[in-house]
Amino acid sequence: MTDRPETPLLDQVVWPADLRKLKPEQLRQLADELRAETIAAVGVTGGHLGSGLGVVELTAAIHYVFDTPDDKLIWDVGHQCYPHKILTGRRDRIRTLRQGGGLSGFTKRAESDYDPFGAAHSSTSISAALGFAIANKMQDKPGKAIAVIGDGAMSAGMAYEAMNNARDAGNRLVVILNDNDMSIAPPVGGLSAYLARLVSSREFLGLRDLAKKLARKLPRPLHNAARKTDEFARGMAMGGTLFEELGFYYVGPIDGHNLDQLIPVLENVRDAAQGPCLVHVVTQKGKGYAPAEAAADKYHGVQKFDVITGTQDKAPPGPPSYTNVFAQALIAEAQRDPAVCAITAAMPSGTGLDKFQVAFPDRIFDVGIAEQHAVTFAAGLAAQGMRPFCAIYSTFLQRAYDQVVHDVAIQNLPVRFAIDRAGLVGADGSTHAGSFDVTYLATLPNMVVMAAADEAELVHMVHTCAIHDGGPIAVRYPRGNGTGIALPEQPQALEIGKGRIVREGRQVAILSLGTRLEEALKAADALEAKGLSTTVADLRFAKPLDEALIRKLLATHDVAVTIEEGAVGGLGAHVLTLASDLGLIDNGLKLRTLRLPDLFQDQDKPEKQYAMARLDADAIIDTVLTALRHNNVGAEARA
Amino acid sequence: MTDRPETPLLDQVVWPADLRKLKPEQLRQLADELRAETIAAVGVTGGHLGSGLGVVELTAAIHYVFDTPDDKLIWDVGHQCYPHKILTGRRDRIRTLRQGGGLSGFTKRAESDYDPFGAAHSSTSISAALGFAIANKMQDKPGKAIAVIGDGAMSAGMAYEAMNNARDAGNRLVVILNDNDMSIAPPVGGLSAYLARLVSSREFLGLRDLAKKLARKLPRPLHNAARKTDEFARGMAMGGTLFEELGFYYVGPIDGHNLDQLIPVLENVRDAAQGPCLVHVVTQKGKGYAPAEAAADKYHGVQKFDVITGTQDKAPPGPPSYTNVFAQALIAEAQRDPAVCAITAAMPSGTGLDKFQVAFPDRIFDVGIAEQHAVTFAAGLAAQGMRPFCAIYSTFLQRAYDQVVHDVAIQNLPVRFAIDRAGLVGADGSTHAGSFDVTYLATLPNMVVMAAADEAELVHMVHTCAIHDGGPIAVRYPRGNGTGIALPEQPQALEIGKGRIVREGRQVAILSLGTRLEEALKAADALEAKGLSTTVADLRFAKPLDEALIRKLLATHDVAVTIEEGAVGGLGAHVLTLASDLGLIDNGLKLRTLRLPDLFQDQDKPEKQYAMARLDADAIIDTVLTALRHNNVGAEARA
Repeated sequence: MTDRPETPLLDQVVWPADLRKLKPEQLRQLADELRAETIAAVGVTGGHLGSGLGVVELTAAIHYVFDTPDDKLIWDVGHQCYPHKILTGRRDRIRTLRQGGGLSGFTKRAESDYDPFGAAHSSTSISAALGFAIANKMQDKPGKAIAVIGDGAMSAGMAYEAMNNARDAGNRLVVILNDNDMSIAPPVGGLSAYLARLVSSREFLGLRDLAKKLARKLPRPLHNAARKTDEFARGMAMGGTLFEELGFYYVGPIDGHNLDQLIPVLENVRDAAQGPCLVHVVTQKGKGYAPAEAAADKYHGVQKFDVITGTQDKAPPGPPSYTNVFAQALIAEAQRDPAVCAITAAMPSGTGLDKFQVAFPDRIFDVGIAEQHAVTFAAGLAAQGMRPFCAIYSTFLQRAYDQVVHDVAIQNLPVRFAIDRAGLVGADGSTHAGSFDVTYLATLPNMVVMAAADEAELVHMVHTCAIHDGGPIAVRYPRGNGTGIALPEQPQALEIGKGRIVREGRQVAILSLGTRLEEALKAADALEAKGLSTTVADLRFAKPLDEALIRKLLATHDVAVTIEEGAVGGLGAHVLTLASDLGLIDNGLKLRTLRLPDLFQDQDKPEKQYAMARLDADAIIDTVLTALRHNNVGAEARA
Repeated sequence: MTDRPETPLLDQVVWPADLRKLKPEQLRQLADELRAETIAAVGVTGGHLGSGLGVVELTAAIHYVFDTPDDKLIWDVGHQCYPHKILTGRRDRIRTLRQGGGLSGFTKRAESDYDPFGAAHSSTSISAALGFAIANKMQDKPGKAIAVIGDGAMSAGMAYEAMNNARDAGNRLVVILNDNDMSIAPPVGGLSAYLARLVSSREFLGLRDLAKKLARKLPRPLHNAARKTDEFARGMAMGGTLFEELGFYYVGPIDGHNLDQLIPVLENVRDAAQGPCLVHVVTQKGKGYAPAEAAADKYHGVQKFDVITGTQDKAPPGPPSYTNVFAQALIAEAQRDPAVCAITAAMPSGTGLDKFQVAFPDRIFDVGIAEQHAVTFAAGLAAQGMRPFCAIYSTFLQRAYDQVVHDVAIQNLPVRFAIDRAGLVGADGSTHAGSFDVTYLATLPNMVVMAAADEAELVHMVHTCAIHDGGPIAVRYPRGNGTGIALPEQPQALEIGKGRIVREGRQVAILSLGTRLEEALKAADALEAKGLSTTVADLRFAKPLDEALIRKLLATHDVAVTIEEGAVGGLGAHVLTLASDLGLIDNGLKLRTLRLPDLFQDQDKPEKQYAMARLDADAIIDTVLTALRHNNVGAEARA
C-alpha cells in the first residue's frame, strides 16, 4: 500500500451521482478502495481514523440508496465523515483535513451541500434530522432525513429528547444506529447494556428473515391491545422494544460491513417504512486496518502515521501536557483525601482520568456522554460530603450550563470543575474551542473561576479546588503541553481571589489570565527594550477578581492591558466593570482588553490561531503603543 | 371550609417523626387534613396548587415509610412540595409561601434539612438522588435517596441520562414516577404515550399481586437468556420494560391516592429491593379540590383564590402582558409568512403560544420538557427554509446553551429566540430569574441580541426577528405587563444594531437596554430638576452594539450610565469593552454600569427586587451624582 493507493473504481466517483451508476456488485470493490484511500489520507493528516473506517460500507450504501443531497444525510459528531467527504466531491482536498485552510475534520455546512448540518459535539443528529424532515413536510417538499448516530452518542439526553419527538416526522426520518460498542471509551450505562443484549441475543438476521419482517410494514395498530401483542411479538423476534416504545419502527441488528444486507435493508426502509425507522447496524471501529481494529481507542483519533506499520508520529518530547499534570495532581489529592472523587462524561482518556481510574477505580464515574447528568450528579455527591471533580472540556461544559447555574451555583455546592481544552484548540477547530467558559461562569454568583498560567500553577489550583468547600470552583487550562516549569513538590493553597505580580514595572501593566502569561512576559521584555517599564501580573482568578491588586495596578500605571484566552464578557469585561465601579477609568488611564475575536475561528495550529486572534506578544505591544499614541478623541470631542 | 381548616391530627404533626407515631389507619385522616391545609394556604398566597394536591398521600406515605431527613427525599421541580413543607416543620410559615422574606415556592436547601436538594427547573432529581446514593455508598453511610419525578419531567434528556446511570446506586436509589398525565401542558412524545399504555393496559395491581411480584426480589439474572425470559414475563405482566432495560426494577402502576397500597409498596421497596427501583404511581393533579380537578392547567399555578368558590383573584386590569403581546405579534407574522413557525418546550401557555396553536395548529411544535432538542430541531427547520421561533424562558434556555452555540451560532442559522421572563421574575425567585441570557448570548459570534423597552418595541422586534434571515437573533422581554403604550398598527423592521435616542440632553447619558427605560426616564426628569441635562438612549441591541450612537454619546457627555436587567458580562460589559477598544474611556468620561448584583436574589415583588438590585431611578440618580462627585482617585494616585 502506498501513500496513493490504486483506486480505479473510486477514481470514477467524484459525486454520489457517479456512485449510483455502479452496479450493486461493484460496491464491494468501491468500499475497499474507499477504505484504502481513507487510511492513506489520515496517514498524512492525522485525525479520526477508526470511526471512519467503521462506516465505509455504510457511507457507500447510504449515498447509493438515498438521493443525497436532496435527502439530508446527517452524521452525528461528524468525526466519521472522511469517507463521506471523499465520495462527495472533496477527495481532491482530503489530504488537507484538519490543516489550516483545509477541510474540517467534521461535517460543515459551509463546505458542501452534502453536509446539510455541521457537527462535532455528539448527539445532535436526530434533532437536526427531525428539523429537516418536518420542514420538508410543512413545505410539501420531498426528501428524507437520515441521521447516523453511534451507540455512545445515544447516552446523551438530547438524543433521547429527539427520539421522544420522532413520530411527527413519519417516514421522512431514518435513524441509523451505528453500534460499534466502543465510542471513545468503553460504553457505560443501561442503554449500552441493552444494545449489547439486542446484538448478542441473536444472529444477524438473514436476508430472508429481513424480507419477511420488513414485508409486514404494519401500520401502527390503532388499539392498545393489538399494539401490545404486536409489539411483544416483534420484541421477542427482533428486539428493539425500547425504540419501538418511543415510536420507531426498529430494524436490526444487521452487519454494517455486509453490503448485500445494507443495500436491500436501506432500500426497503426508504420505500416501505410507515413511520420513523431505526436501523440498528453493527460495525467494527477501525474495520479493515489491522492496527486500528486491534486498538480501537488508540486509533480513535491519531497523529500522522506510517500506513504500513501503523506507527503513529509521536509528539516531540517536551513538557508534560496540562491534561497529564491535572491527572497526576488529582491523584495526589485523592491520596491525601478520601472524599476526592472524579467524574467524566465519556472522556476518561481525553481528560487524563484514565490514570485516576487505575489509581482509584472506585472513586471515578464515567457517566457516558451525559454532561448534564454529570454536573447534577456531582452536585448530589457534594451535598452529601464528597469532594467531586467534574472534568469536562470547556466546550462540552456548555451542555451542562443550566445544571451549573441551577444545581451548583444557586445552591453554592462545592463542585470542582476541571475545564480542559480552554481557549483555542488547534485542529479540531471552532466547534471544540473553549472560548466562552470564563464569560458564562464568571457571571454567576458564588462561582470561583481560575485559569492556570502554567503547569505548576495548575497543580496549585487543583489543590485549591480540593480544599475549597465554600462553593463551586473551576480551573481552566489549555490543550497541549506546559511550559516546562518545574512542578512543585507540594502544592500550595492559593488564596481565593488573589493574583500575583510576576514582574514589576511602572508605566505599563499587563494583566494576564491563563497561559498567555508567556506572551505577556515576552511583550514586557520588548516594551522594556523600548524604554517602557512594564509590570506583568498573573491574575489567577477571573472571579473573584483581586480588587486590591487591580486597584493598585490601575492607579499606578499609564496603560493597562488585560489578556485572556476567551471571548468578550470574560476577564477583560470584569476588570473594566470593576475599574468603572471604582472610578479608576475616569482619569486618563488607558485600559485595554485583549480577547478572542468576535468570530468562530477555523482550525489551524494553535500558535497561528492565537496570532490571528491577536493574542500574542506582538498584539500586546501594538495595543500598548497604540494606546500611548492615542489622541484623546473623547476629550477633544468634549472640549 | 374556612381559611384555617379543622386539622386535629395534623396539629399533632410538626415533624415527620410525629407522623411516624401514627397508626397506618390514621393516615387517611391526616392526608385529608393536609389537603385542606394546603388548599387553605395556597388560597392565601397563590402558587402551585394542583401538583401539591396530587401528591398529598404520596408525601405522607414517603415520610411515614422512609427515614427522612437521613433518607434523602428529592422532589423534582419542587413545585409540589407544599404538603411536604407542612409536614417538615414549616407549617407555621406556610402562609408566607412565595412572599418576600417567606418560604420559597420550591424546595430549598437553605430552608430545611428535609430539602436535601433544591429545585425549580425540571428533571434534575434522579441525577441528584444518584449523587446522594453513591456518596452514601462511598462513605459507608446508611440511607436511601428517593426522587419523585413527574411524567412530564421524564421527557427531558437529563432524566434519561440519570436513569441510564442508575444501576451503580443499587438499592439505595428509589425513583417514584408520579404519573398524572398532565405536566403543565398535555403530555407529548413517545415516552408519554408509552406510560399511557402501561397504565391503560391493566388494572392497578391488587395487593396480592403486588406482594407476589415483589416477593420475587430476583437478583438480576446472570445470563442473557434467563434475563430475556424473565424480562418479557415481567414486561407482559407488569409492563415497564423500558425502565427495566435501563436497569430499574419496575413496580406499578399503583394508585397514588390509595394509602393502603402506597404504604406496603414503599415498605417493600425500602426493605427488599435488590437494585434501583422505579415505582410507577398514578395520581390526579388537583386531587380533592373540585375546581382544580376539573381544570388541571388552570390550577397548576394560581393567584390567590377563594377556597369555597375556587374563584382566583384576577390580575388588576391594565396593559397587556409582554407574553400576550408576543403571541399576537407572532400570529400576525405567521399570517404574513407561511415559513414562520413556533417551538415550545412544554410551555405553550406560559409563552403565549397556546394562542398561536389555535391560529396555526400545524405550525407549532411542543417538544415536551426538552430545550436541547427544541433548539437543534429549530436549527434543522431553519436550515431547511423555515423561520422558526424558539420560545423559551431565559432561565430555561440555559438548558440548551450548547445547542445555541454549536448548532445555531457556529452555523449562523436563523433561529429566532423569543426569550420571555428576562430579568427578575418575582415570586418564583432566583431559580427562575432570567439574569444571564444577555451575557451568555452576546458573547457568541453571529448572535443578534435585542431587548424590548416596551410592548410596542416588542412588536417591532418580533417582526425584525421574522425577517432576519442572516443568522440567529434573540429578543428578550420580561414577565408581567407592558407600559400601556399604544401598539403599532404595522410593525417596523428595526435596523440591526441601531439604538434610538428617547430624550436629548448634554451632560448625562443613560444608555438603557430593556424595560428599565421607564426608570431611566424618571431618573432623567429628576436629574434635569437638579440642573443636569440628561440624554436617554434605548440601545435596543446588546449585540451588535450601536457603535456610532455610543461613540457620540460617550464623546459628548460627562457621565454615562448603562442599565440593564441582567448580570455582569452583559450590556454594561460590552459598552465598556467597546469604549475601551475605541479609547473613549481615556479622557475623563465617567462611565458606569448598573446591572444585577452578584447574588441570587430571593423572591419578592418585582419592583422590590429591582429596588434591592439597585436598578431603579433612585439608583441611576445616585450613580450619576456619585460619579460627578468622584474625586479622581486614579489621577491622584498617579500624580
